[in-house]
Amino acid sequence: MKILLNLLMTCFITFFSFAQMKPVKIVFDVTSGNTKVHQSTVRHVKAMSQAYPESKFEVVMYSGAMNMVLKDKSVVAKDIENLVKNKNIDFVICQGTMKRHNVDDSQIITGVKSVPDGILEIVSKQSEGWGYIKEGQ
Amino acid sequence: MKILLNLLMTCFITFFSFAQMKPVKIVFDVTSGNTKVHQSTVRHVKAMSQAYPESKFEVVMYSGAMNMVLKDKSVVAKDIENLVKNKNIDFVICQGTMKRHNVDDSQIITGVKSVPDGILEIVSKQSEGWGYIKEGQ
Amino acid sequence: MKILLNLLMTCFITFFSFAQMKPVKIVFDVTSGNTKVHQSTVRHVKAMSQAYPESKFEVVMYSGAMNMVLKDKSVVAKDIENLVKNKNIDFVICQGTMKRHNVDDSQIITGVKSVPDGILEIVSKQSEGWGYIKEGQ
Repeated sequence: MKILLNLLMTCFITFFSFAQMKPVKIVFDVTSGNTKVHQSTVRHVKAMSQAYPESKFEVVMYSGAMNMVLKDKSVVAKDIENLVKNKNIDFVICQGTMKRHNVDDSQIITGVKSVPDGILEIVSKQSEGWGYIKEGQ
Repeated sequence: MKILLNLLMTCFITFFSFAQMKPVKIVFDVTSGNTKVHQSTVRHVKAMSQAYPESKFEVVMYSGAMNMVLKDKSVVAKDIENLVKNKNIDFVICQGTMKRHNVDDSQIITGVKSVPDGILEIVSKQSEGWGYIKEGQ
Repeated sequence: MKILLNLLMTCFITFFSFAQMKPVKIVFDVTSGNTKVHQSTVRHVKAMSQAYPESKFEVVMYSGAMNMVLKDKSVVAKDIENLVKNKNIDFVICQGTMKRHNVDDSQIITGVKSVPDGILEIVSKQSEGWGYIKEGQ
């Protein structure tokens, strides 16, 4: 009986630890020019990365979200600079969007990466099993 | 020949029944404070649950969508109260969002559940094969 | 040694070609009445279909997006008419949304298809492995 209880206990603890530690991967899609959306995105990534430090997060910005990563215009520049120091967090801007706005690398917040195509980046992550969250209001 | 036709017919009917009855599972993501988004979300869930009574629906509210589940402020309180009586429909609010707004359980529409983290809830459902719909305008 | 290098080179080229040519399938979800969202949706589909001609794209419009496919009201009528000539691109409107707005087929931009239920169409595509992009601001 005692052995059985121990066994059950072990199973339970193993399962629980696994549930706790199962890493999440989430790609966030930001196309909004609304600074409130930029702020809530940063808040979400901050909270999730603190709660699930083993998980991976990537924020993909394109379309109307250019300002979110511009040193001079972003209302979340400081937050992004700090978040991208975490190796599990990436902020990436679409190069197509940069071209449309005549923006070059020097104008982008330090640590933000770029990808050729924002939409392709997002659906690639989805096809690799990442969760998808569209940010917006 | 007749046997072959019967066989084909059976296959066809089986396939068609299966297609008709295949249950859908959909998680809806609501972050908007816009009451029009709250209304269209409720309209979508109502229509889908009537058309596909065997399917499962979960509406996850977080970020800017706090008011949608507050007894005193929601413009869809009555609808939500009725919808959650259906065992295949859940409306869940993020506990993190509740804390940020200093809201306690007594202020929440009866029958609405809560989850520790709205985003984690959504990506967990996605990873279990649920379809994902972001509500918004 | 030379053989090994050749082998590696072949593997590399094969892998790279595969990565380049792997066709993408993306379903776009449009519910907004905002004409800027209609314009950016069309811009995204145009850019993606030029960059990835072997890929498939479907734009599903429902809820608040009725005007996007109305001959008389759409600000992207010409673009949609041209895009749907491509066999890899579909624009589909929800029949439920048409009914709610008392719209009949004759009012719809030529080449736009319709589906019984926009949300069901989207989650069906998702369950078949299509990537999902919610358009919005």
